[in-house]
Amino acid sequence: MFMGASTKEGQEIAEKSREIVRSLISKKIKHLKPGEQVIVERIVHSTADPEYAELTKISEDFLEESLKALKGIEDILTDINMVKVGITSYPGEVKCYIDHPLTHKIARKREITRAAAAVEVALRDGFHGIVVIGNSPTSLLKVIELQKQYPDRIKSVIGVPVGFVGAAESKKSLQGTPIPYLVTIGPKGGTPIAVAAANALINLSKE
Amino acid sequence: MFMGASTKEGQEIAEKSREIVRSLISKKIKHLKPGEQVIVERIVHSTADPEYAELTKISEDFLEESLKALKGIEDILTDINMVKVGITSYPGEVKCYIDHPLTHKIARKREITRAAAAVEVALRDGFHGIVVIGNSPTSLLKVIELQKQYPDRIKSVIGVPVGFVGAAESKKSLQGTPIPYLVTIGPKGGTPIAVAAANALINLSKE
Repeated sequence: MFMGASTKEGQEIAEKSREIVRSLISKKIKHLKPGEQVIVERIVHSTADPEYAELTKISEDFLEESLKALKGIEDILTDINMVKVGITSYPGEVKCYIDHPLTHKIARKREITRAAAAVEVALRDGFHGIVVIGNSPTSLLKVIELQKQYPDRIKSVIGVPVGFVGAAESKKSLQGTPIPYLVTIGPKGGTPIAVAAANALINLSKE
Repeated sequence: MFMGASTKEGQEIAEKSREIVRSLISKKIKHLKPGEQVIVERIVHSTADPEYAELTKISEDFLEESLKALKGIEDILTDINMVKVGITSYPGEVKCYIDHPLTHKIARKREITRAAAAVEVALRDGFHGIVVIGNSPTSLLKVIELQKQYPDRIKSVIGVPVGFVGAAESKKSLQGTPIPYLVTIGPKGGTPIAVAAANALINLSKE
């Protein structure tokens, strides 16, 4: 399994793609650690958008803390199901509470988004591990808010929500917390970026 | 339910986002039909990437044929599960054969990708409706190949595979067929674009 490809034809495509990605971004990411480079390469491979080499920002402790959590088979929490189903070949659990009955109830009662309510339900349910947010800024803001209440439960955050309203701000807020993070600065981001980063980390944790 | 938002806070974010999207791309898409404009707006909303206003190309018959199929509650076929779970609120069936046992068998035997084999399994299984490809160029090429064998089964294709190897070429090939299409030209594309276009069409089909 290489870059998500499981067949010979798929692997040939992935290898050729990696060469092209490297030719496009290797200079821009040469200051990163080798493991971080692998993550950014996979993000650019998944989006065919070299701009992500510049938009992706990774905190000093992100790689180490994330790998420790994944090697310990801690949980992965995603904001939406599209991210959940994209994270393949993790031996631990990948969870998403967006469709949980309590999530619907909290969202309706407090007039907040379901993605935000889902984070609360996950932490009440005992979640500890890595959070992967590919869509919802309100979900990321909820992680930041609840991290104070549950300081040792959130080991790292892949925070790449997308959109013109609140996404850039939510990622900037994450960068101001003690949580180890990977973000894409500005409005851009999305589920393929979240999934690419998570899958690259999972592969690294198996090396 | 507006732009995928089901709560008050989610709807406020979506409405503000739509205003920003319109301010960024309205001039670039004013030559499109109103329904096509709605689709492109939703793609840019989902990616926060205004470049998609220029990259998205829609065939003359795409909107009409797609809406006819959706109003007839024909099936939707996706290349991967990330696209399938992102297509919400369709009263018909959304199918994906990537994990089907026969797909694995064909992929291994003929050394083709699972995404390509999955299209073959779907058509053998009687699929007719709209095909939504958000990831795999080989899957789109298989649709184009099999359309000759099953000329009346594929009503339209949202073909937005992503990547530096084969994606641009596969989309160009689709544009040369009689199949009604929506594509993003060049290497860029991906699951959020596929899902945004499909969900926008589904909403339009309910109007």
